[in-house]
Amino acid sequence: MNDQQAKKVSESTTIFTEIVMPNDTNPMNNLMGGNLLKWMDIASGICAGKHAGKVAVTAAVDNVSFGRPIKIGDVVTIEAQVTRAFNSSMEIYIEVFKENIRSRSAKVKCNEAYYTFVALDDDGRPCAVPPVDPQTDEEKHRFERAMRRRELRLILAGRMKPEEAAELKAIFIP
Amino acid sequence: MNDQQAKKVSESTTIFTEIVMPNDTNPMNNLMGGNLLKWMDIASGICAGKHAGKVAVTAAVDNVSFGRPIKIGDVVTIEAQVTRAFNSSMEIYIEVFKENIRSRSAKVKCNEAYYTFVALDDDGRPCAVPPVDPQTDEEKHRFERAMRRRELRLILAGRMKPEEAAELKAIFIP
Amino acid sequence: MNDQQAKKVSESTTIFTEIVMPNDTNPMNNLMGGNLLKWMDIASGICAGKHAGKVAVTAAVDNVSFGRPIKIGDVVTIEAQVTRAFNSSMEIYIEVFKENIRSRSAKVKCNEAYYTFVALDDDGRPCAVPPVDPQTDEEKHRFERAMRRRELRLILAGRMKPEEAAELKAIFIP
Amino acid sequence: MNDQQAKKVSESTTIFTEIVMPNDTNPMNNLMGGNLLKWMDIASGICAGKHAGKVAVTAAVDNVSFGRPIKIGDVVTIEAQVTRAFNSSMEIYIEVFKENIRSRSAKVKCNEAYYTFVALDDDGRPCAVPPVDPQTDEEKHRFERAMRRRELRLILAGRMKPEEAAELKAIFIP
Amino acid sequence: MNDQQAKKVSESTTIFTEIVMPNDTNPMNNLMGGNLLKWMDIASGICAGKHAGKVAVTAAVDNVSFGRPIKIGDVVTIEAQVTRAFNSSMEIYIEVFKENIRSRSAKVKCNEAYYTFVALDDDGRPCAVPPVDPQTDEEKHRFERAMRRRELRLILAGRMKPEEAAELKAIFIP
Amino acid sequence: MNDQQAKKVSESTTIFTEIVMPNDTNPMNNLMGGNLLKWMDIASGICAGKHAGKVAVTAAVDNVSFGRPIKIGDVVTIEAQVTRAFNSSMEIYIEVFKENIRSRSAKVKCNEAYYTFVALDDDGRPCAVPPVDPQTDEEKHRFERAMRRRELRLILAGRMKPEEAAELKAIFIP
Repeated sequence: MNDQQAKKVSESTTIFTEIVMPNDTNPMNNLMGGNLLKWMDIASGICAGKHAGKVAVTAAVDNVSFGRPIKIGDVVTIEAQVTRAFNSSMEIYIEVFKENIRSRSAKVKCNEAYYTFVALDDDGRPCAVPPVDPQTDEEKHRFERAMRRRELRLILAGRMKPEEAAELKAIFIP
Repeated sequence: MNDQQAKKVSESTTIFTEIVMPNDTNPMNNLMGGNLLKWMDIASGICAGKHAGKVAVTAAVDNVSFGRPIKIGDVVTIEAQVTRAFNSSMEIYIEVFKENIRSRSAKVKCNEAYYTFVALDDDGRPCAVPPVDPQTDEEKHRFERAMRRRELRLILAGRMKPEEAAELKAIFIP
Repeated sequence: MNDQQAKKVSESTTIFTEIVMPNDTNPMNNLMGGNLLKWMDIASGICAGKHAGKVAVTAAVDNVSFGRPIKIGDVVTIEAQVTRAFNSSMEIYIEVFKENIRSRSAKVKCNEAYYTFVALDDDGRPCAVPPVDPQTDEEKHRFERAMRRRELRLILAGRMKPEEAAELKAIFIP
Repeated sequence: MNDQQAKKVSESTTIFTEIVMPNDTNPMNNLMGGNLLKWMDIASGICAGKHAGKVAVTAAVDNVSFGRPIKIGDVVTIEAQVTRAFNSSMEIYIEVFKENIRSRSAKVKCNEAYYTFVALDDDGRPCAVPPVDPQTDEEKHRFERAMRRRELRLILAGRMKPEEAAELKAIFIP
Repeated sequence: MNDQQAKKVSESTTIFTEIVMPNDTNPMNNLMGGNLLKWMDIASGICAGKHAGKVAVTAAVDNVSFGRPIKIGDVVTIEAQVTRAFNSSMEIYIEVFKENIRSRSAKVKCNEAYYTFVALDDDGRPCAVPPVDPQTDEEKHRFERAMRRRELRLILAGRMKPEEAAELKAIFIP
Repeated sequence: MNDQQAKKVSESTTIFTEIVMPNDTNPMNNLMGGNLLKWMDIASGICAGKHAGKVAVTAAVDNVSFGRPIKIGDVVTIEAQVTRAFNSSMEIYIEVFKENIRSRSAKVKCNEAYYTFVALDDDGRPCAVPPVDPQTDEEKHRFERAMRRRELRLILAGRMKPEEAAELKAIFIP
């Protein structure tokens, strides 16, 4: 069993800032999706590593949809926080904000995503991580819903049968 | 309506090759997930652009899970092909292979993923793309199942209600 | 005169996170000084841009000394905040922290620096920026001492005579 | 003697795809020659490595001439295939194609080149590689002519006297 | 004591050339200050390493002010030379020139700076470096004044009291 | 006709310095050939641009052979100088030196190459460049031999028949 002491979400929250440079963009001068996927991976990987106190490697990325384009020169802020731990894996919640300095417009949220990481010991084997101790209402809500997202992930990876997904089933059979 | 002539999958199939370099890896000397996500985005974006004859931007990435680690020095080959078009969007199927040159081991498949792209006209507005004309059995199978994946994507993005997802519902209510 | 409304320090505080990768290091596997200088420049440039609501370009870097080495794989967190504005220029205070995830050691402060930026209008000419409204004791202390640092900067750049530096002179003639 | 089993050209053929990004270009917005030289080296090095089942290092680049400019945003496809092996060295034939997605223009061949690689064993010493077994007429033609190109290479490197170059001499003394 | 033989400045002088590329610039199309700081660090680090015959790591950067903007496409030439050695540390003098090839304008000096490096032995400990043997009048002048700059550096780093800085005091008390 | 005033070789000589970093190397920890080809292209392109006072683009690279490996951490110095101009094209001679700082070994020459560049006017059309005025014996020797290298280049590019190559023919028919 995992008898590590639970850690708060705030202990590993990670903020990551980038400016969108010419080489990050497509011919429309918008940030390429692949760069955002990579930046979210770095931010959430640091966050998972801090929570685990171990190197953490990407295990899964949930469905990500890209809505508002992010323009060249925009400042991108990525906030990553752990939502819940499952033995050796951790789900990380990521919010992406953009800000155009020159227009003095407010910071706008433009993406959110969930990445899952696995902690590895020094021999590269999965190892137990501390449980998450959610404090705020939002943290508790994300902690609760993490089970449902996990079921969907396991079904999509072919490692759980849909009929076993108790939490998820409820969405389709009200 | 979209009256463009259908195009074959092979007309836009894209092959992308990379060697895993030191800066692409985590402290375990494995390729970081975020780099693979970025490489898959570039390969599939080129594929979508070729099919559409337009700049194509990432609209969604389906759930991706990372299994076999890819080591420093490995050759990564990414094959991207369009599965189906929906008005201005295209679903791209991506397979990732790794190969260790020095061990003379066979090429091993280590990931697959679906990315969705939207074609943009010169003013940056979504525009119609040619339909896909699947030829092989595999291409036809992926074409058929594309509808189900699309429903899941729309539900996960909050743009379709689960009970409206005819294709997907069948998984949960046999 | 500059009649823009004063802004709080917290409105533009910027947090920047990086992992030290192989290409960032010298043959001792320590972060090269030049990379830290560059990262501090990016973080403080974003901070200055947010405060000014304009593009801000580096005008000066004060003496920086490098003490504790930062190792490959360490997480570097850079916090940048504006201390005081002088017409079109802003002084930014930067703190650098390092953290070794695997050793679970505490976050350690390893550098601090002051960078000065000038805000430019759309024609590339210096333009007025909002005054800084310091709130905490630390912010007030840094606001007060900014004048002394500015004198030293002007002397070192050959734009002020030492005997005119009222604030600074006091250090040498008690 | 080298008693390794001959391998077909197709077993190591390598396809490499890149988009020309802003940082790859000169002030005319064309791909810089040096970047193409580097990309051809990576593609052909992977191809040589696959054929040898060993790390392969660049030994020589034949004369390369640059004709049609490749523009920013173009998709560059590089196809590399082994033509012939000489003990521990392999000649790789490289074709470069460009494609402008937005103009829907056909893929255009814009360069070809020959690079020579040497296979190294784990101690970094040259080691024997499998012979090449050409199948198509084109492969056989390139296999035949490889000897002539090799003579020129040795002369240019000062390792063969012109009068010893039987194959090459025939060009100048019909 | 350090009984290594003195070396001339010219033995380690280092010239470094870069073209300002899109990703090096801010939205004004000028070279970002942080990139220049990094390039100066690389050039002076190589210079210090050559003088010491050891790996040299950045110990301090003196106040740097940025005057003339350097534009995209400009050729930047950085000349680094050692001015004086103090046990295990070396002061390096850096001059930065810019040149616009297309305007055929003369090479213009746009920055100068002093960086200090420490030589490390193979175990990463500071080790003695050869004294500097200045030859030209300029080299001798910079050698003489190095003591004053060193005092300022030690005061600014909090490792010397202002009243102990004999050389520097003279500036404020004529 | 081209009536521009001849320029000396020294007016455009360019020195370029790099340290071999982890991402520049192959699995043998040696600099990849493609990186050296790219660095030589940058150095010689700057040199050609300075001589022409115009943007210069790569037109041809002569046969390059790679002998001595360059190791990770080595300092690479590239010296580029114009040898001769032909209407709108210039031949650049490049020497590559390596130096291992820690071994205090002497600087060693490890490569030389000839690149040809074409000067372009602001509309991207080839334009006349100043003649080269060689001063030293070496410069004069390279100036003389440039004609022979040019003939070989034209033959290899299929733009001259071998029997028309007066200079080159002499090598094969003594």
